[in-house]
Amino acid sequence: MRAVVLGGTGYVGGELIRLLLHHPKIELAQAASRRLAGRPLRLAHPNLRHVRHLAFTDPADLRPADVLFCALPPGETAAMRHRLAGLADVVVDLSPDFRLRDQQTHERVYGPAPGRAEAAAAFVPGLPELYRDRLAGARRVSVPGCMATAAILALTPLAEAGLVEGEALVDARTGSSGSGATATAASHHAERAGAMRVYGPAGHRHEAEISQACGVTARMTVTAVPRVRGVQVVAHVSPRRPISRAELLALFRGRYAGEPFVRLVADRSGVHRMPDPKILDGANFCDIGVAADADGRRVVVVAALDNLVKGAAGGAVQSANLALGLDETAGLDFPGLHPV
Amino acid sequence: MRAVVLGGTGYVGGELIRLLLHHPKIELAQAASRRLAGRPLRLAHPNLRHVRHLAFTDPADLRPADVLFCALPPGETAAMRHRLAGLADVVVDLSPDFRLRDQQTHERVYGPAPGRAEAAAAFVPGLPELYRDRLAGARRVSVPGCMATAAILALTPLAEAGLVEGEALVDARTGSSGSGATATAASHHAERAGAMRVYGPAGHRHEAEISQACGVTARMTVTAVPRVRGVQVVAHVSPRRPISRAELLALFRGRYAGEPFVRLVADRSGVHRMPDPKILDGANFCDIGVAADADGRRVVVVAALDNLVKGAAGGAVQSANLALGLDETAGLDFPGLHPV
Amino acid sequence: MRAVVLGGTGYVGGELIRLLLHHPKIELAQAASRRLAGRPLRLAHPNLRHVRHLAFTDPADLRPADVLFCALPPGETAAMRHRLAGLADVVVDLSPDFRLRDQQTHERVYGPAPGRAEAAAAFVPGLPELYRDRLAGARRVSVPGCMATAAILALTPLAEAGLVEGEALVDARTGSSGSGATATAASHHAERAGAMRVYGPAGHRHEAEISQACGVTARMTVTAVPRVRGVQVVAHVSPRRPISRAELLALFRGRYAGEPFVRLVADRSGVHRMPDPKILDGANFCDIGVAADADGRRVVVVAALDNLVKGAAGGAVQSANLALGLDETAGLDFPGLHPV
Amino acid sequence: MRAVVLGGTGYVGGELIRLLLHHPKIELAQAASRRLAGRPLRLAHPNLRHVRHLAFTDPADLRPADVLFCALPPGETAAMRHRLAGLADVVVDLSPDFRLRDQQTHERVYGPAPGRAEAAAAFVPGLPELYRDRLAGARRVSVPGCMATAAILALTPLAEAGLVEGEALVDARTGSSGSGATATAASHHAERAGAMRVYGPAGHRHEAEISQACGVTARMTVTAVPRVRGVQVVAHVSPRRPISRAELLALFRGRYAGEPFVRLVADRSGVHRMPDPKILDGANFCDIGVAADADGRRVVVVAALDNLVKGAAGGAVQSANLALGLDETAGLDFPGLHPV
Repeated sequence: MRAVVLGGTGYVGGELIRLLLHHPKIELAQAASRRLAGRPLRLAHPNLRHVRHLAFTDPADLRPADVLFCALPPGETAAMRHRLAGLADVVVDLSPDFRLRDQQTHERVYGPAPGRAEAAAAFVPGLPELYRDRLAGARRVSVPGCMATAAILALTPLAEAGLVEGEALVDARTGSSGSGATATAASHHAERAGAMRVYGPAGHRHEAEISQACGVTARMTVTAVPRVRGVQVVAHVSPRRPISRAELLALFRGRYAGEPFVRLVADRSGVHRMPDPKILDGANFCDIGVAADADGRRVVVVAALDNLVKGAAGGAVQSANLALGLDETAGLDFPGLHPV
Repeated sequence: MRAVVLGGTGYVGGELIRLLLHHPKIELAQAASRRLAGRPLRLAHPNLRHVRHLAFTDPADLRPADVLFCALPPGETAAMRHRLAGLADVVVDLSPDFRLRDQQTHERVYGPAPGRAEAAAAFVPGLPELYRDRLAGARRVSVPGCMATAAILALTPLAEAGLVEGEALVDARTGSSGSGATATAASHHAERAGAMRVYGPAGHRHEAEISQACGVTARMTVTAVPRVRGVQVVAHVSPRRPISRAELLALFRGRYAGEPFVRLVADRSGVHRMPDPKILDGANFCDIGVAADADGRRVVVVAALDNLVKGAAGGAVQSANLALGLDETAGLDFPGLHPV
Repeated sequence: MRAVVLGGTGYVGGELIRLLLHHPKIELAQAASRRLAGRPLRLAHPNLRHVRHLAFTDPADLRPADVLFCALPPGETAAMRHRLAGLADVVVDLSPDFRLRDQQTHERVYGPAPGRAEAAAAFVPGLPELYRDRLAGARRVSVPGCMATAAILALTPLAEAGLVEGEALVDARTGSSGSGATATAASHHAERAGAMRVYGPAGHRHEAEISQACGVTARMTVTAVPRVRGVQVVAHVSPRRPISRAELLALFRGRYAGEPFVRLVADRSGVHRMPDPKILDGANFCDIGVAADADGRRVVVVAALDNLVKGAAGGAVQSANLALGLDETAGLDFPGLHPV
Repeated sequence: MRAVVLGGTGYVGGELIRLLLHHPKIELAQAASRRLAGRPLRLAHPNLRHVRHLAFTDPADLRPADVLFCALPPGETAAMRHRLAGLADVVVDLSPDFRLRDQQTHERVYGPAPGRAEAAAAFVPGLPELYRDRLAGARRVSVPGCMATAAILALTPLAEAGLVEGEALVDARTGSSGSGATATAASHHAERAGAMRVYGPAGHRHEAEISQACGVTARMTVTAVPRVRGVQVVAHVSPRRPISRAELLALFRGRYAGEPFVRLVADRSGVHRMPDPKILDGANFCDIGVAADADGRRVVVVAALDNLVKGAAGGAVQSANLALGLDETAGLDFPGLHPV
């Protein structure tokens, strides 16, 4: 299988390249970049300094492949969507362009984009835990946002069991890599280091994705935290009836039994009793833990993942594996480090 | 005015010493420590390496003072409470011993402690923004917990205006200094660095303090974040009626007008649009910001402070200033650093 | 005494404002900024959010003052040097413009600048530990670079004692605030966080300042480390004759006896046995420690300071105090925090 | 091939387990721990939470294997050295017990240990870049210390070329994981976070290893820096004759041509011009860069690696691969992450 990556110099592009270079069944044929065409990968991705057989390709020189991963800025995949079919059988898009299937919602969140919802209808969400059957053999995949992925995996068992009363409150925390590789005043180290920046107190754009996937209205608050990688979501839910931690654990264990990349965190002692992005850098896991107040009237679900892996490139590869009929876990076996 | 600090080697004790050494009206006469009696302050507080006129005193050698600050582990102040009157006119306690005024609640949270609530009745909460009148001339002061202080200041304007529908949800984030100066498996740097550890998903002991002060039931979730100092609280409230950000700002501005240590953060641009503990290290401010969902049906209040200053030693000095009839802001003028 | 700050929006400008706002004898009359003229200080310095009586002034509206602090980018003070006399009696420059007194050296390091060395001759180096007598009553002061300050204070006792054989090797480590408030690819948080970036392996421009002050040829290596503030210098010297740690300590203690802002760090136990910028944020101290190899044939001197305080704004205020005949320590009493 | 890990709960033990679980030719049969015998791996290594087929084994229940990795505290491997032959054909020790081949030196550094040098003579140093031929088919391997590994790889090309005049000065920087998994006052997060702690200004025990391997006397200074993983070494050498950066690069390129895990870092632009441990977490690379002063009279070599991988577990697996006749790179293909 031959793969091509579009948007190869970004952080998500770099993770796609890293994962595909070690994929047992997919060969990374080309990684495209306008800015660095013809230049070595290491100029954008110093961790790949040893890779000598591949350099960035000019996007004009793309050759057909089995699978195309698009890690372009918002709007760019949509702008070239009529060329996609000629480039690869399977297209996996990591931008927000084809995530929302309601035209009005899409335009409210992302601005005017005629016909976008109609186009999005052809894309299967790149979230195997919810859409595995549809991903098998899919031709178009749209990977959800990193915070949406964590929130959807946190809320789905409760939503499917009809246990969510009213709205869910989703407190999301994110590292700095989530806002990309371009330096800005907000990303200046002296300002961002050690910061707990509540940059999205209300009304985050991932709310719409969560509602679409879970059928639960989510109110999000987003805080940028002192990490480079990692998303952690703390979802607060008022259950329809009082519920205990034990029952919650059973519910989540049942829902995610057999999932290769969802791990329940349920230890009662030690320092690792809840999911923490600290130990997930580079791994494709989404770790999930649950708690309930003593009266069973509030449920807390914590989910953590690496925004560039399970929340982007890893989720894309996992979905592509399914679309291409490969082992779903192929190329995704790095377990993460501890301590780090 | 002569002051004495009990528990001088802890982190809160160190902040008390630092503040009192520069206080224009209070002289730090003694800082007591059993472990380091007779030894220089720098062994516990390297930032005070230049202080040569004062060493730690044996607690047995305490001499009467105008004000006594108790920064002892839980239970120790209570154990010596009958000696306090002989040590100083004004006693400011920073432990949880005398915070809760309901016996049953106290015992549920901290365990059996006969007669504790009755003793607590003699203490005025060390929170000038709520209890300024009672603090003037007070003989006994009990400083609230650091997370409780932030949460109470975040919720009080809404609570007093009768705007809180049902329960409030308080998401608290804390640095590592909050758990003290003793090394534990949980505080081991390789484990704690970069961690987002949800160590209190539900049922935190500060809930009771918040309810007592605001009359609002608070459900807390506490996460240890990658900082040494700092508390940040994100309070989510369902308002009794839809409310806009502008109305919220007016409410909070009105409530905290003239408060020397509460600052409203309300900028609409730049990277400092919400309170961030990053710029509060060493300062006695509690910064507060507000937001509302577009439909006005959820209110978000963010409060940040330095847990060792406004959340402990600074709040104690501010309260002592009032109790002793001094300028409330005396000795508390360090504004914090930027960047840092 | 009235003071004016030029370059008020930068990080050094912000520290000057912070220090002067709390100075007991100097009133900050104006803080100038072209970009933010007329706007509140908090837009550049969120730690000064509570300051309401002062806004940024247009540089065109400067009024005469007793002392002018210039915190402008390289070359700008020099460009306006003929206007300086009309602005204030005492001018304290924090740029590199007037640091080097040899024309050839200046041009080698900073590029063509006709007549610069001649102009520099009128400036006294803003380093009271070496130039206290000349600073008393001085009209022009040029504050050394932050790394140079640390290195000069580390090497001076050995140099004055004639103990330095050959060249000294100066390993300098610096936080991110040293490169200013402007976002660049190098300062992007995702790249800079956790980095140990040897950006100056050889030939740093501060070498010339060190040689000029100490008469010792210094070879520097500079590493950007995972901090916002702080400079730490490890100087390695081959002593002219074998020397013990005890003798070194005596030498340094003698040289810096009575210095208000140099602290010898000489504990043999505990975790604070050597100078560490960690506890110096905001403080005007330069901490110094010494060690020697068992054979006495290599001397190691470690110096640490806050690059924005003792290495810039604090050193400037200390020097201005001397120039204006004030208490040298006025306005500089913040001791730093621990832990932080 | 069956492998056993002794000392499985430590940080090095955890990395050995992580690497061996994904090794294509070696099966991890047992990971021994006294404290956690019978308990799941995740209690010590939360990144391995998904591993269900293996639990910790009681050291008393070890079964013979092809290769035994000993990651025990200093002295413990030596204490059981007569049992080793019965446990495995190939023994790879990661402790300092068998590193030094001179009895007097060993005892000076580590204390009394009769016959230790004699025992050490049977061990080949686990550093393939210097001892590849001897490692092929070796029965006993002793992996060098993490800082020694970096320093030896930095100095060897110069030493072999006879270019080192006098002593080399090695400035080593290390993350907190290097001191192990046990919490101490020195590792307490509030003290260690953000610290630049020069804990070994002179006389570090790795000096002896460096001299033994390179024939160069090294004077080390060690600083604990704000990272969890990572070693960076800056070696300063006075070359026997003036030398240029270009010549240095050619020398190092020649020496390390074909080395799978040594990468030369030689870019002249961008932010990654020198080796940085930041991008090496989890990878088995040692990155090396060089610089020279303009006059060619000082050479600076910078080396970086992950102390738990190339500096311990990865170096051990690489050596074991050679000893067992496997592909030297097997199981070591994780390239590290960027950004992180």
